[in-house]
Amino acid sequence: MRFALAIDLGGTKVAAAIVGEDGTIVARATRPTEAQKGGDWVLNRIKEAALEALETSKLHPAQLVGVGMGTPGVVDSEKGVMLSEAVNIPEWKGRNLKAELERVLGIPTFVENDANAAGLGEFVFGAGKGAKSLVFVAVGTGIGGAVIINGELVHGASFAAGELGHISIDPNGLKCGCGNYGCIELYASGPAIAQRAREFVLAGVDTKLASMCSPEELTAEHVAKAAQEGDFLAQSVLAESGRLLGVALAGIVNLLNPDCIVIGGGVAQAGDWLLEPIRWEVKRRALPDATKALQIVPAALGTNAGVLGAAALVFRSVQG
Amino acid sequence: MRFALAIDLGGTKVAAAIVGEDGTIVARATRPTEAQKGGDWVLNRIKEAALEALETSKLHPAQLVGVGMGTPGVVDSEKGVMLSEAVNIPEWKGRNLKAELERVLGIPTFVENDANAAGLGEFVFGAGKGAKSLVFVAVGTGIGGAVIINGELVHGASFAAGELGHISIDPNGLKCGCGNYGCIELYASGPAIAQRAREFVLAGVDTKLASMCSPEELTAEHVAKAAQEGDFLAQSVLAESGRLLGVALAGIVNLLNPDCIVIGGGVAQAGDWLLEPIRWEVKRRALPDATKALQIVPAALGTNAGVLGAAALVFRSVQG
Repeated sequence: MRFALAIDLGGTKVAAAIVGEDGTIVARATRPTEAQKGGDWVLNRIKEAALEALETSKLHPAQLVGVGMGTPGVVDSEKGVMLSEAVNIPEWKGRNLKAELERVLGIPTFVENDANAAGLGEFVFGAGKGAKSLVFVAVGTGIGGAVIINGELVHGASFAAGELGHISIDPNGLKCGCGNYGCIELYASGPAIAQRAREFVLAGVDTKLASMCSPEELTAEHVAKAAQEGDFLAQSVLAESGRLLGVALAGIVNLLNPDCIVIGGGVAQAGDWLLEPIRWEVKRRALPDATKALQIVPAALGTNAGVLGAAALVFRSVQG
Repeated sequence: MRFALAIDLGGTKVAAAIVGEDGTIVARATRPTEAQKGGDWVLNRIKEAALEALETSKLHPAQLVGVGMGTPGVVDSEKGVMLSEAVNIPEWKGRNLKAELERVLGIPTFVENDANAAGLGEFVFGAGKGAKSLVFVAVGTGIGGAVIINGELVHGASFAAGELGHISIDPNGLKCGCGNYGCIELYASGPAIAQRAREFVLAGVDTKLASMCSPEELTAEHVAKAAQEGDFLAQSVLAESGRLLGVALAGIVNLLNPDCIVIGGGVAQAGDWLLEPIRWEVKRRALPDATKALQIVPAALGTNAGVLGAAALVFRSVQG
């Protein structure tokens, strides 16, 4: 079996894994990112995590076919160059991370935007296995995603595709930091769900959420937990966010007619309290011809999507 | 030079053309569609128009590399099978038009949805020449379109992609015949523009439109003409529709990051009165990373987009 070294670079930690071509994770290691210490520091943390994972795997370096890395930010994945900063390292903008990692690690390296990597992971190893065209939605602090058409990631003309959190569902809606109004991430991201729930708690509505923590500490995780435990208000808040996300996804379905939408990210752990309302609205709003082949499913890989997608990058790019 | 026989099947007429690989139309012929006389009748009209165009061209049939046809409806363009009715011929649903045309015309035939064909025409021969990824928007009686990514038409999992007229810009907006609410075609199609203008005329607002025809007869063409002539109300109605279309397109830009959006269809003849407001909203609402490489341009092929796209289908599919 072929193996790849996979790296998932996040704001808090660097996760490295040795992944088999069948999607088995045979070893892992992590390091804190500590981006405030600069880009070279982070590159060294990546190297350390990579070497530790390799050592744990007991594989010989020659058994690795390549390195895949997912990173936040806009990545020219053909050249491996950052087109924006990543994990708050402004000096990385314009830097060729592929070349730097190849220098440090000594094997062919592939760099991709993290949401694209996670979407590819679900497509190759997870909930989207067997799909032809897939839309991956990562619902977390924001809403990001990836689009895969006929098996290929859609990068767009300037590697900026997949920003589906900034699709507007209301031209006169809430003002978003991005400059647009009514972006779906203002209605269905984790902080948006927490904020909506918080308003009800502060208004004195009778809900389990009131006894779980102070209103300020409330998160989407609390809302999901309360929904699970039968709290009607929490269920309703998730339904509202799910339905609004469904409005945006119905438009994507009419545009791209995918056969699979995978809902991932931390907030997707709310499960059917979020997913069913998404399905309702897509069913109600998208054209019947475009929903015939469509499945809307929860992500299957959890936090492993990043490293598995990074590994998939390698296996599809390196022949053999 | 290679030549193709191109057919643009419409509700009113069948247009046939002999097209060179450089996009030159060397001969044309048309027949009325008369769909009410049934599918076989229409196939015969297609055959007649094709043979007349061929005769006019003075080419030998052996000089044609193939036949391309664009038709309304959902087409399995791999098999050449209609998945819906076309031009109100219910019996065509399920029929293999590719096989039937190959039998009648005797050369390799390629069948495609008409909006996809027109989009491909603009991509290969028209306003989108040289683009990498293109979104074609046909603004007419409805709003349709096509998506081309890395040079390939996006068909979707069930050949239903490209229905961008049914992207909602307002979940609580106008009710659409498709079942959705707030579909952009209810705000920016020809009839929508005419209806908005009509309401002002009926309310007695001072506008040139009042003297052009009776309010019932008002069309988007009148609105475009009045705008051209300096009528402020007509300009404002077009601006409103353009801006709302821009809201939907900004979402598509964030999702797919195309380098070219081509605005075609009859209503696009309103020119910059419609296009500039589209550009304003896309610029204001889409992410800067996604608009870096973007051009929003008017279609260049007019009503020839259909036959030129049908010809392009042939040239890309037949080697040599």
